[in-house]
Amino acid sequence: MASKALVFAEQNHARFLDELKALLRIPSVSTLPENKEDCRKAAEFLVADLKKIGIENVGLIETEGHPLVYGDWLHAAGKPTVLIYGHYDVQPAEPLDEWLSPPFEPTERNGNLYARGAVDDKGQVWAQIKALESLMKADGKLPMNVRVLFEGEEEVGGEGIANYVASKPANLKADFALVSDTELFAPGLPTLCVGLRGMIYTEVEVRGAKTDLHSGMYGGAAPNPFVSLAHIIAKLKDEDGKILIPGIYDNVIPPSPEELKAWKSLPFDEEHYRETEVGSKVLVGEKGYSVLERTWARPTLEVHGMPGGFIGAGAKTVIPAKAMAKISMRLVPDMTPAKTFEMFKSYVEKIAPVGVDVEVRLLHSGDACLIGVDNKYVQAATKALHEVWGKDTVFIRSGGSIPIVGDFDRHLGQPSVMMGFGLPDDNIHAPNEKFHLKNFELGIQSLIRFLEEAAG
Amino acid sequence: MASKALVFAEQNHARFLDELKALLRIPSVSTLPENKEDCRKAAEFLVADLKKIGIENVGLIETEGHPLVYGDWLHAAGKPTVLIYGHYDVQPAEPLDEWLSPPFEPTERNGNLYARGAVDDKGQVWAQIKALESLMKADGKLPMNVRVLFEGEEEVGGEGIANYVASKPANLKADFALVSDTELFAPGLPTLCVGLRGMIYTEVEVRGAKTDLHSGMYGGAAPNPFVSLAHIIAKLKDEDGKILIPGIYDNVIPPSPEELKAWKSLPFDEEHYRETEVGSKVLVGEKGYSVLERTWARPTLEVHGMPGGFIGAGAKTVIPAKAMAKISMRLVPDMTPAKTFEMFKSYVEKIAPVGVDVEVRLLHSGDACLIGVDNKYVQAATKALHEVWGKDTVFIRSGGSIPIVGDFDRHLGQPSVMMGFGLPDDNIHAPNEKFHLKNFELGIQSLIRFLEEAAG
Repeated sequence: MASKALVFAEQNHARFLDELKALLRIPSVSTLPENKEDCRKAAEFLVADLKKIGIENVGLIETEGHPLVYGDWLHAAGKPTVLIYGHYDVQPAEPLDEWLSPPFEPTERNGNLYARGAVDDKGQVWAQIKALESLMKADGKLPMNVRVLFEGEEEVGGEGIANYVASKPANLKADFALVSDTELFAPGLPTLCVGLRGMIYTEVEVRGAKTDLHSGMYGGAAPNPFVSLAHIIAKLKDEDGKILIPGIYDNVIPPSPEELKAWKSLPFDEEHYRETEVGSKVLVGEKGYSVLERTWARPTLEVHGMPGGFIGAGAKTVIPAKAMAKISMRLVPDMTPAKTFEMFKSYVEKIAPVGVDVEVRLLHSGDACLIGVDNKYVQAATKALHEVWGKDTVFIRSGGSIPIVGDFDRHLGQPSVMMGFGLPDDNIHAPNEKFHLKNFELGIQSLIRFLEEAAG
Repeated sequence: MASKALVFAEQNHARFLDELKALLRIPSVSTLPENKEDCRKAAEFLVADLKKIGIENVGLIETEGHPLVYGDWLHAAGKPTVLIYGHYDVQPAEPLDEWLSPPFEPTERNGNLYARGAVDDKGQVWAQIKALESLMKADGKLPMNVRVLFEGEEEVGGEGIANYVASKPANLKADFALVSDTELFAPGLPTLCVGLRGMIYTEVEVRGAKTDLHSGMYGGAAPNPFVSLAHIIAKLKDEDGKILIPGIYDNVIPPSPEELKAWKSLPFDEEHYRETEVGSKVLVGEKGYSVLERTWARPTLEVHGMPGGFIGAGAKTVIPAKAMAKISMRLVPDMTPAKTFEMFKSYVEKIAPVGVDVEVRLLHSGDACLIGVDNKYVQAATKALHEVWGKDTVFIRSGGSIPIVGDFDRHLGQPSVMMGFGLPDDNIHAPNEKFHLKNFELGIQSLIRFLEEAAG
């Protein structure tokens, strides 16, 4: 069935692409102070288009950082409401000399559109807006109630949107969220992400002597905080990647046999992944689990950096008074951040070597989430995707955490449909980021059909 | 017996002190580019005085950094030759607001002379020069042949003197060296340092993935270099401070029973040391050894810093492609740096976890040294000290390394008599550095009598 909206989208595709290129020309790099005005310009670009296509109550919501963009259309009485999310900010483009065409001059090449933000996330935001435009223009209305909320600090972990979601839940009331910031598992394979890992991010600070000491004079009698941290870390995680905190796996819910079977049939080759993505000699991790299980369905513990002491070039013979390890854990259902941190903290305190004081701090945390594949909006998405792509949807998880999905769940009670159209080799956060042009087109069609299906 | 030189020293002491104050007013901070000319000024101050008192061939020896000061007097036919060493450069004075009187305005207070460099090492250099002057003026000659060599880069680890010693050994030919850059074990207690630990300073670099990876996406499958380093470090040294490299203690020569007995009778209280110097909850280290044994006569292994990954404020979820640990070991006789590094390197390579590449680099090294207390110059020093201080000399070691002492030994074949007059609370490298005025006076007397005794 070709909806009128699909026809409109097809007829207007060249313009949609031109508009996206104009959006991509705005260097809205959220982390750079010199691009502050560009971020606002990108937000205003969205505001202007949302108004033009008939979204109402459109405007900027100021935060301590870059503004949010909000709009709604709430005239589909009796129909469900969707909260559409994306972000207009982008990563820095550096290193510039590795780009084959300028990062902020969108260029078509080999069926792709190359630019910083092409797929992460401006291209996908634009697919969402153009799906709304197609529905509105073709039908004179939207099939369901819609709220849009775009942020400009996704790439810097800004708190603006989380604060707004937590403080103004009534303004964002909806039945489900639609998040387009993910990717297909493989080219041509319609994909829905139905699980994210949660996390706790901690700092473990170890203090020994009251001041930095000379390692010649005091080496052998004064505690060395780095050595103490090494012993702590070695007792937190063994060389196979197994976490050694007692009871830490007790609340891990294993994937269902059906889910495991589905993962096994995904086009995924561990050796290819090792060679092209990780590049290490061998892959590591818990024995008895596949790479997808390890990264999607098992908790992990990682050390990100160990500040303190002497890190310059050359030699300095200091026994530092203190040292720190930045350690995070990824969580899977039904682990909770609060309980996990409590277990982590009390275990670290218990195993801390004599002679040092240890302080364990929680910097931030996020819940794991799992959306049932039988959720009605997931089912509607599956139907829409099959129609557009001609294939059954694969349900994957992500090892990462999308904090806003947890916030939508926790503060708004909304499950998220994570429908994205990137490709694994789209170079997000790297030079030569691209959006496969066909995916931009099929993405708009998928979103149109999804909103029609989800309206029931 | 009061030698004529002692009488001269007593009669001229006020002038000696005034001259030292003039030297201390020159801010010869070797690490600061803005004090480059001051360093040269301090060197020239020494040159001028050495010429004035009758030392010959006095002049500056240029290096890539601050110049060396050389002079000699070689007219004592049939007598031994001493190479007198000290340094004219000082540490920075910061933090300035903690000084009770300006660091470069020498001030007498409570029987002490306060100034940056008062005891480390200008005051001790000046005691050496004034001992020479007293001998020369009182007797019209020196009791033995003398060479002096002062450097201006001791506080920055400059290579100038080492290069000169290695390349021009004939210019520094002597029977022994006299180094005045150490301290008394306790007030009023004449002390000779007869042992120094050696060292190897290494970098252990661990590489996992080919690039930094996101800990959400890849956590569980990609190797984490910090976790690998933690396992390596935990296997290098146990929580009691015992080094776990097989065979590492095989070449450790224990102190003699006499030496151990002498150490036990030193005025040293471990609890006081813990509280006032280290400030940790408890002292750590190898079981079965006293603190003095641990720091003077046992090898140790310390981690100084672990560069790599994310060390900023807040959270970044990176699995770094590589991480490094700066690890040094202190060595005691008969461990050699070359053999120890070989053992360290091959053990680290052997225990490196799977999935990572490890590279072990040697940054620099130095030999341990031990001067026999029966050495005739040590015996002469002991006799001189007893006469001046009225007490038996205590023989101590230092846990640190004085590289120049190793260089004198290795390149010149000279044992060093390390006779210094600082006190443990003289605040070297800290605000309110001081030289106890009585020690300056007794130091000059000790050096006079030592040179007389050493002449035979």
